[in-house]
Amino acid sequence: MTVVIEQVRPGAYYDSVILMQLQRSLASLPGISDAGVVMGTKANKDVLAQSDLLTPTVQAAHADDLVIVVRGESQQAAAHALDQVDELLSRRRKAESSPGYLPKSLDSALQMAPEARWALVSVPGRYAAGVAREALRLNRNVFLYSDNVSLEDEIVLKRTAAERGLLVMGPDCGTAIVNGTGLGFANRVRRGSIGMVAASGTGLQQISSQIHQLGGGISHALGTGGRDLSAAVGGITAGQALDLLNRDPETHVIVLVSKPPAEEVADDILRLARTSEKPVVIDFIGYLRGSVDNLYFVSTFEEAAALAVELSAATEHTRTAPIPLPAGFAPSQHYLRGLFSGGTLAYEAQLILQDFLPRVYANAPLQDENRLPNAAVSQANTIVDLGADEFTVGRLHPMIDNDLRIRRLRQEAADPATAVILLDVVLGYGAHPDPAAELAPAIAEARRQATDAGRHLEVIAVLVGTDEDPQDLESQRQRLEDAGAWVTTSNTDAVCRAGRIARNLDPAAVPAAQEPGTPVPLETLHEPLVAVNVGLDSFRISLEEQGSRAIQVDWRPPAGGNEQLMAILERMKKK
Amino acid sequence: MTVVIEQVRPGAYYDSVILMQLQRSLASLPGISDAGVVMGTKANKDVLAQSDLLTPTVQAAHADDLVIVVRGESQQAAAHALDQVDELLSRRRKAESSPGYLPKSLDSALQMAPEARWALVSVPGRYAAGVAREALRLNRNVFLYSDNVSLEDEIVLKRTAAERGLLVMGPDCGTAIVNGTGLGFANRVRRGSIGMVAASGTGLQQISSQIHQLGGGISHALGTGGRDLSAAVGGITAGQALDLLNRDPETHVIVLVSKPPAEEVADDILRLARTSEKPVVIDFIGYLRGSVDNLYFVSTFEEAAALAVELSAATEHTRTAPIPLPAGFAPSQHYLRGLFSGGTLAYEAQLILQDFLPRVYANAPLQDENRLPNAAVSQANTIVDLGADEFTVGRLHPMIDNDLRIRRLRQEAADPATAVILLDVVLGYGAHPDPAAELAPAIAEARRQATDAGRHLEVIAVLVGTDEDPQDLESQRQRLEDAGAWVTTSNTDAVCRAGRIARNLDPAAVPAAQEPGTPVPLETLHEPLVAVNVGLDSFRISLEEQGSRAIQVDWRPPAGGNEQLMAILERMKKK
Repeated sequence: MTVVIEQVRPGAYYDSVILMQLQRSLASLPGISDAGVVMGTKANKDVLAQSDLLTPTVQAAHADDLVIVVRGESQQAAAHALDQVDELLSRRRKAESSPGYLPKSLDSALQMAPEARWALVSVPGRYAAGVAREALRLNRNVFLYSDNVSLEDEIVLKRTAAERGLLVMGPDCGTAIVNGTGLGFANRVRRGSIGMVAASGTGLQQISSQIHQLGGGISHALGTGGRDLSAAVGGITAGQALDLLNRDPETHVIVLVSKPPAEEVADDILRLARTSEKPVVIDFIGYLRGSVDNLYFVSTFEEAAALAVELSAATEHTRTAPIPLPAGFAPSQHYLRGLFSGGTLAYEAQLILQDFLPRVYANAPLQDENRLPNAAVSQANTIVDLGADEFTVGRLHPMIDNDLRIRRLRQEAADPATAVILLDVVLGYGAHPDPAAELAPAIAEARRQATDAGRHLEVIAVLVGTDEDPQDLESQRQRLEDAGAWVTTSNTDAVCRAGRIARNLDPAAVPAAQEPGTPVPLETLHEPLVAVNVGLDSFRISLEEQGSRAIQVDWRPPAGGNEQLMAILERMKKK
Repeated sequence: MTVVIEQVRPGAYYDSVILMQLQRSLASLPGISDAGVVMGTKANKDVLAQSDLLTPTVQAAHADDLVIVVRGESQQAAAHALDQVDELLSRRRKAESSPGYLPKSLDSALQMAPEARWALVSVPGRYAAGVAREALRLNRNVFLYSDNVSLEDEIVLKRTAAERGLLVMGPDCGTAIVNGTGLGFANRVRRGSIGMVAASGTGLQQISSQIHQLGGGISHALGTGGRDLSAAVGGITAGQALDLLNRDPETHVIVLVSKPPAEEVADDILRLARTSEKPVVIDFIGYLRGSVDNLYFVSTFEEAAALAVELSAATEHTRTAPIPLPAGFAPSQHYLRGLFSGGTLAYEAQLILQDFLPRVYANAPLQDENRLPNAAVSQANTIVDLGADEFTVGRLHPMIDNDLRIRRLRQEAADPATAVILLDVVLGYGAHPDPAAELAPAIAEARRQATDAGRHLEVIAVLVGTDEDPQDLESQRQRLEDAGAWVTTSNTDAVCRAGRIARNLDPAAVPAAQEPGTPVPLETLHEPLVAVNVGLDSFRISLEEQGSRAIQVDWRPPAGGNEQLMAILERMKKK
């Protein structure tokens, strides 16, 4: 027969370390079999109920009440335990206070360490925004570990920071690595050339740990908090972090990890990532797009780590110059025209071009709104599948009969708006016995006529076939190249090249969004990390273990945690 | 000054090779600068318009009218050209007819080659379904190259075939490779261990060519036609093909390529693919899911080829036995319970489990309908994020304080329905200095109590950390393993193992769909390919060039192409 009794202490501030220690101390008292020391929230009551510690009085407590419950072997043992709460609390407080002087405010801590660029904030959520605001006011970057911070506060904090060229990582930012020093929860990993931007704490930890275990290393790993890529916040911190890593010479490969972002935020962030010259590995956990150009989508942390290590090794060893794009286009030339015989090649082309161009018309479009009104006439950027059913009634397939393609090639080449013509040439049994014999002269003629009219016509051909095909792959390639075509055996390569050229020429192509606000200076990452720590003392200890300087603030909530009074103080400060 | 004149010949049958040759002959006559010989469809008229060959009379022609247009330097030259049409046509017919005897019907062709398992059909679309029906009636597999075949005909053909253990590849099936022989358009590629199923002709050609160029090889490559994975057709051929390659001992890796399938068809096909013990590389061009277990999603043909070659090399060299799953579960044990401290690890776990289990509940679910009513109580399969905001009001994060997790571990272990408990253990700065010291005894105790109650409790732990972390990764691993946990450093591995076990125990998990109909016998792929060819003679020639036997049918449309009469004949045959 056991007895459960409780005590409820309305609304004062208690450090969560102290609450944990109190619970442990109570549970270890003689005659006590279990104890719970929690704030009286719904979730905490549900948890107490599972341990049979939920009394009617506890059930009636409010979210900002402290609830203390014990289960004793007897009424006497339980009551005796509760009687000791105040003594245990004051004993803890004494044990905790350090011998040296601790500054009582951020302001005075920063007078002790004016070189500190960072404030680490891990106080309870309802106080955290106030501390972060204060840090921004003092021109410091914020690592905001605290959760239970309102979305409104997050937005204001991040906008303020972005205006001033400061970072707010968080709220609910579990981890980061700045200049080799881990903040919050962070694994000890090798320095290296992989930079990370993470809206996910344990995602960052899993990936950075695996990168280390695979022999790779981390330049910097910047957290954003889990809501950063929501529509409301708009990826402010992720955008700043990407921009920073883009400019950071130590970073050669970027890994971006987040739960699936809001669609419009994903678009912005991906547009930004695409302008990077660095490979960007993206794990938007379940939100996947095609891996095109410098963007590599993966679906697990494990893949992200493995691919990042592979890419970082490649960028370090091979740094090949990208194939230069052609020049000499006339001002009238804006568009690409794809003339495909293979329907799926045409389909893949459209899919890849989504990453380069705002709109591509087609007779077999990905979305119906991009359908060509007349398949026989291109408009703006166009991909035509000349093997589609509509073209093959009573006519041989364009892989066998080149007539339709050659007519269309001439038609596109004569259009002063055409800059790039993209063709597939499919070899193999059943196909035309020698497509280059007909296509190469047509290409040469089309290019010659464009040159005569003062234009550069870029012709890109994707040759599908093998060295054993009856048409002789190498001879086909040679004759197409001699005619002036740029030839590859990869549809992806062909389409990416066409897309890159057209992106530069398309008047409707949107330039990459400029991040609003002031760029975060690179020194933020490059100076030795010094921080002021407000909240969990264990985070200060970790920094010192890593050889960084950290000043602990002896923080107490303003107005003794009284929220009404806090609000008045806050308003006074603003004046 | 040029003159364009035309001739319209209402509704008779013309072979498209003959039409192409007629157009070329006309265009090469003296005084003729261009010619068009096409059926009078809307698309063909649009094309003629682009070459300034669309006269008012041609504009008025019908889709089944043959349209002949020439542009001459003079009225006389043009008229002279048109006068020669009949002679040119009859000259062609004579040149075309082979010296030897050609059977006039499928039936008689099959009497000449009863061992032929295949009929290749490339007659014009409106006649093609009839020929395919005839082939099925004669118990032959069909490679149906023809396009412009109705969806209704496709469905009936494929259902009939599936009932009889036959394949219908197509309509609009451009390519296939059966037992080393290419059908239709096909590249000459090395034999090997990679099998393909493709709803995409040029996709199959690009991938198989690149596999060859990368040193890999193809066992068989089966086409399905572009509409096979639509909701209406339901992936009948793709399902048969997957099943065949699954059973085929030569095939070690499967590549599945298609434009994005209908959602419900994708689900069926992926369920089938997941039951394969072979790796399956999937390019659903723009339709991506997470790469989990034996399924590998890619987004370009290039990636598909590279990955297939890599996997086929791996399966040939390492054939490692899969890690065995535990046994000894009691009949009451059905579910997995994930108790995470890392929110994103919990999120990734849910994402991966979608591939194993019909439903997983969570306090932070992927879809709101899977939200746990009470986060403190698991139900069926459950993933709890114990670091979620609701649990951290006034309480330390579970990476620092193990109390909440240990309570929950005991609670889950006591539930007779629990089979698997999945935990993350995150090391590093800021985290608990020695999590195994508290978790390992709790795990050992939980397992002991389960054993005492006649149950096997599987505990799977994912250890996130590095060998340089302050907690000592190896010692953490050792103590967790000593407590009976199965330990890995990869969340993916941990979750896949948990998913595999729970899939076998979950009463609500649906068994893989059995394909309806009769399985296609493996001999269909393994006997030397012999085919009857109805349509393009070039396809017969290709087969013979590849060393296969092929019988050409001297096909003419029934009733001289008169569709009304054809319908009557068809009805008579059915009786």
